[in-house]
Amino acid sequence: MDYKNIKEKKFLINGGLGMIGSTIAKILAKHDAEVTIVDAMIKPFGANMFNIEKFKSKVKVHLVDIKNTSKMEELVADKDVIFNLAGQIAHNDSIDNPIYDAKMNYLYQLNVMECVRKVNPTAKILFSGSRLQFGKIINIPVNEKHTSFPETPYALHKQATENMYQFYHQQYDIDTVVFRIANPYGPRGQIMHAKYTIINFFIRQALEGKTILIFGDGSQLRDYIFVEDLAKAFINAAFVEESKGQVFNIGSGKGVSFKNMVKEITRLVGDGDFQHISWPDNYINVETGDYVTDIKKAKALLDWEPRVNFQEGIKKTVEFYSKHLNKYKS
Amino acid sequence: MDYKNIKEKKFLINGGLGMIGSTIAKILAKHDAEVTIVDAMIKPFGANMFNIEKFKSKVKVHLVDIKNTSKMEELVADKDVIFNLAGQIAHNDSIDNPIYDAKMNYLYQLNVMECVRKVNPTAKILFSGSRLQFGKIINIPVNEKHTSFPETPYALHKQATENMYQFYHQQYDIDTVVFRIANPYGPRGQIMHAKYTIINFFIRQALEGKTILIFGDGSQLRDYIFVEDLAKAFINAAFVEESKGQVFNIGSGKGVSFKNMVKEITRLVGDGDFQHISWPDNYINVETGDYVTDIKKAKALLDWEPRVNFQEGIKKTVEFYSKHLNKYKS
Repeated sequence: MDYKNIKEKKFLINGGLGMIGSTIAKILAKHDAEVTIVDAMIKPFGANMFNIEKFKSKVKVHLVDIKNTSKMEELVADKDVIFNLAGQIAHNDSIDNPIYDAKMNYLYQLNVMECVRKVNPTAKILFSGSRLQFGKIINIPVNEKHTSFPETPYALHKQATENMYQFYHQQYDIDTVVFRIANPYGPRGQIMHAKYTIINFFIRQALEGKTILIFGDGSQLRDYIFVEDLAKAFINAAFVEESKGQVFNIGSGKGVSFKNMVKEITRLVGDGDFQHISWPDNYINVETGDYVTDIKKAKALLDWEPRVNFQEGIKKTVEFYSKHLNKYKS
Repeated sequence: MDYKNIKEKKFLINGGLGMIGSTIAKILAKHDAEVTIVDAMIKPFGANMFNIEKFKSKVKVHLVDIKNTSKMEELVADKDVIFNLAGQIAHNDSIDNPIYDAKMNYLYQLNVMECVRKVNPTAKILFSGSRLQFGKIINIPVNEKHTSFPETPYALHKQATENMYQFYHQQYDIDTVVFRIANPYGPRGQIMHAKYTIINFFIRQALEGKTILIFGDGSQLRDYIFVEDLAKAFINAAFVEESKGQVFNIGSGKGVSFKNMVKEITRLVGDGDFQHISWPDNYINVETGDYVTDIKKAKALLDWEPRVNFQEGIKKTVEFYSKHLNKYKS
């Protein structure tokens, strides 16, 4: 896509020091757009100053929590596009602390939306929802009309925020976009544990020569989307008028078995091993079954399609962490 | 319904000093059940100590906010049934302060639910949702499957809590019940302004010889449910096993035009007058169209039906406020 007038637009990225946010920032900075990053750098989430190291002179960074209403009112006031990627990102953690998840993934998102409604109601505002909103998968590929039965507080609150976005679009004509994202992976993700981006964590394990544990037989299909492709979908959505008020399922559109994902990683890293173990109880309860995204709507409306296939994506990710492992492992 | 073993059951009523909660408490106390009321008496909501004056020796009252996790854990621990009626109750106010509404009508409800899950997961927990969750009405009478497009933050958050109840039922087998309530009225409601129970406020105006203002032509149908009938539906639901995990639309099942409601009030009070004025902007945006409840499911599963018709209900309410106006008008 030709990002027309991109230099005249002002972008705000909440959670802009994380994997997805910083990748969006990188692409926007490359086009000399005016980029402001907001991040509270809350531990244990994925914010990392190193994520923007190479282009930090081209972006403004505010270490602000999105729950801070007066600061957020100032920050959204003059922006054309607001990407909302700040949040609690581990759905298993949300089971242990649903109240915290409700604040991070619903209440503070509502705070940002209210700031937009009050001080800048014509801005475009985009939200990162999750494939987990669907719960148990009835049929693949999953399109936007699939039933939604969240199985974790994380998924419940992502759905609540999607509903809130729809509400603000309908009642106040706010220019909202929601992505229900499959499994993103790629450079810039936190790899301290297995809870966030499983591919990234497994790459770390392989690089360290460890044995990767696969729950069950690893036959479940997942849709792994390379973060650069995902970031481009976000940016395209910001430029396309027809995205207003819409919800999109975003993924690679391809299913890869969990086991093959692990094999590909060990093959490309040239180290590490894997072993099958049985599912822990708290995981099997929220296992959704095979997931593959139907990306027809996104392709049709966003002038977008994934460009980086699975092998290439893994390769790029392995290269990144081979170089920068020490910046991400603690 | 025969409330078998009612004396052996322990009931908790959150928001138990308000109109609906205190009416439930009154009926339970009459049956010598063990009743505990929790209320934070937050202004400007409907809590009023006078609501329980006649049976206060038979109920325990805790002036606790439902957001207080440790106190709520203690309070829910030994209960068999928990009625959740605490909340922000004016849908127009929610437009001015959606964040506050999100806390009151979602976050703190989640807090109560988490207390139940942690310390008393076999308790029955009931929630007062609203007919406003439906938004614009497509066809009447409205059954449980009607589409839901909330038009105020109040309705959005009532829906979010309903979804949360469904989630806890599905994931943790919690014994949840949700009522989507039409327009309740009757003794014990706050009448300081028109925002809560419109019938009650109009009765005050008529008793004070004032002119009641009707927006538009007053032809819109509403379903007014007498609070004693509503309270009995709640209590029946607490005794019926089949209510587990269910959502019910609760109302009188009858439509009364707004204008006829006002006429009936002025006729029975024998004073007051009315006048038509045009709709204020912020009201017309959230006007849902005619509303009449389809109460088939509630009748079938709850061994319940409304017993007090509209004329009787108005009469009882007029009698109540004629006697006790000074306890409720300020």
